[in-house]
Amino acid sequence: MPVPSTESSAPAGPPKDFGAVFDRLRPHLAELDSFLRGQLAAFEPEIRDLADYCLDASGKRIRPALVFLSGWGADDRPATALVRAAAVVELVHLATLVHDDIMDAADLRRGRGTAARQYGPETSVLLGDALFAHALYLAAQFPTTEVCLAVSDSTRKVCTGEIMQTLRRRAVNVTRADYDRVIELKTAELFRVSCLLGGRLGGHSADFTAAAAEFGRQLGIAYQIYDDLADFFGDESRIGKTLGTDLRSGKLTLPLMVLRDRLPAGERALLIEEIAGRREPDLAGRLRQMGEYDVFPAVSEAVLTALAAGEAALAPHAALAPVPLLLQLGGALRLQLKNLRAPAA
Amino acid sequence: MPVPSTESSAPAGPPKDFGAVFDRLRPHLAELDSFLRGQLAAFEPEIRDLADYCLDASGKRIRPALVFLSGWGADDRPATALVRAAAVVELVHLATLVHDDIMDAADLRRGRGTAARQYGPETSVLLGDALFAHALYLAAQFPTTEVCLAVSDSTRKVCTGEIMQTLRRRAVNVTRADYDRVIELKTAELFRVSCLLGGRLGGHSADFTAAAAEFGRQLGIAYQIYDDLADFFGDESRIGKTLGTDLRSGKLTLPLMVLRDRLPAGERALLIEEIAGRREPDLAGRLRQMGEYDVFPAVSEAVLTALAAGEAALAPHAALAPVPLLLQLGGALRLQLKNLRAPAA
Repeated sequence: MPVPSTESSAPAGPPKDFGAVFDRLRPHLAELDSFLRGQLAAFEPEIRDLADYCLDASGKRIRPALVFLSGWGADDRPATALVRAAAVVELVHLATLVHDDIMDAADLRRGRGTAARQYGPETSVLLGDALFAHALYLAAQFPTTEVCLAVSDSTRKVCTGEIMQTLRRRAVNVTRADYDRVIELKTAELFRVSCLLGGRLGGHSADFTAAAAEFGRQLGIAYQIYDDLADFFGDESRIGKTLGTDLRSGKLTLPLMVLRDRLPAGERALLIEEIAGRREPDLAGRLRQMGEYDVFPAVSEAVLTALAAGEAALAPHAALAPVPLLLQLGGALRLQLKNLRAPAA
Repeated sequence: MPVPSTESSAPAGPPKDFGAVFDRLRPHLAELDSFLRGQLAAFEPEIRDLADYCLDASGKRIRPALVFLSGWGADDRPATALVRAAAVVELVHLATLVHDDIMDAADLRRGRGTAARQYGPETSVLLGDALFAHALYLAAQFPTTEVCLAVSDSTRKVCTGEIMQTLRRRAVNVTRADYDRVIELKTAELFRVSCLLGGRLGGHSADFTAAAAEFGRQLGIAYQIYDDLADFFGDESRIGKTLGTDLRSGKLTLPLMVLRDRLPAGERALLIEEIAGRREPDLAGRLRQMGEYDVFPAVSEAVLTALAAGEAALAPHAALAPVPLLLQLGGALRLQLKNLRAPAA
């Protein structure tokens, strides 16, 4: 497969979120993009434009990055197997986004119309299905069933996590264990499998591969908690969505859970009414209370704990090429967490 | 795998639609049912009940029947590989039904609440995804990637067919070629793959397997046209749904297309207004016109043409065990077609 010119097919600018390490991945992500576009030919002509629309190049491509970094070898040139595996995990992710946007009735994602708005919810359900199916079709093109097994199992878990989250909307008694279980399934699982596939297909040892998978899992946990924190403390223009959507939609994420558990009884009762949807949410008031009750440091601590656990898993393999790169990813998330705090402080 | 007692796990009564040949398949379908129930353990505990709800044993199980019949061997005992393949195609089919019912906002299927009504559309989108993912997970448990490749490719085609159909709702210029393409993808493809997998996994020759696949494809075409005919000429209590849904939803199926092309200009203009959704559909009037303009025999002819093509594909293999059984399936569809006419005549 020819390496395409990065000018024409590289994602527009390095994703800000994970910083410098993505610079190393420019050729890899350009090749991924070119590979994904090439896959459009495998779709029936009648839906090619629709599938193309979903391949939105402005995404962060974090899961593909995990595949490439975990599979990092002696030279920087991306191996075909890694590109294909990166395409598989990204297509699964894109399919879940298409379905998520239907469920959230979201009009915009990354600054442009969602597939749901573009083609209607009916078509988008099927389009997401077609992307899923194609991800598994690509997975089945490896010599053994290993990739198919890992990806289909993961996909079911991701869906299960999303189902649990959906069923718990407006529920006010969600526990930390409930929350942990959901993010484990809906986010950490695909991060984990991305690293697992990278390690395996990059020809690394079973030991390192298991360590990379655990790093991916913990990074996924950290990233999801960070994302839930950014919903309250982020910069709207930077994260590209309206703050407080979780409060408005009755999603009891960790920041809200910590606030719920720290508020005095009277205020807690009001917050619970807001989460249950029986009262207009008072976002400004809740943000002020999050400051008063030190919600940011408590949730931030959970991000850092997961990151540390992931880094610890990699420690015995510090001499391997992928490790410093994966650690940079963790470092970048730490920096983002710090930046999140800055504007609110 | 133990053969379960047919008393506890057999589908409730033989599916009426395909008659006697299903009697031969009782133990096979009982084993399939038991296998599918056993798969629930592979789902995360939190969604087991939801997945269980979708495994509705009252379905016709036509696709599994095609797997078993195409793979028919020396004895009647279903081979494990065939049971697994039957489970794969049935799970893909069930997943598409879960998603279809969301899109049609259907409340009832086979006389009970749809998953969409039971759990809400958001959860049902994800539940369908989880069923898809599990189908591919089962497919990945074969020794080679062959089943995964065939099933994921088919699944994408099925979704593509459904997308095309969705995008053409209320379109009044649909041609016979458009219609043929949609049913080829949305129905014939999975019938085809069911026979292909049966032939392969049953250890039959490549020649016979290709012939069985072509029979399955043609049977799928015949079955879909029959189904579209039953929407106008069926017995509501027997087919379990309200007649005329395609007219009401603006789906230009073959019976409507033939009527459109045979009506005089003035009446045609009215029908077109109905399909476009700009005029209340006059079902009784359209049924009367279908009688006057011989729509039934014209559409019926298309069913019989496809059946004959499928049977012709099997002719060179008449001596093989699966062939008389597959032909019985075709015979049963012929009989159903005849019965469809009876009440209207």
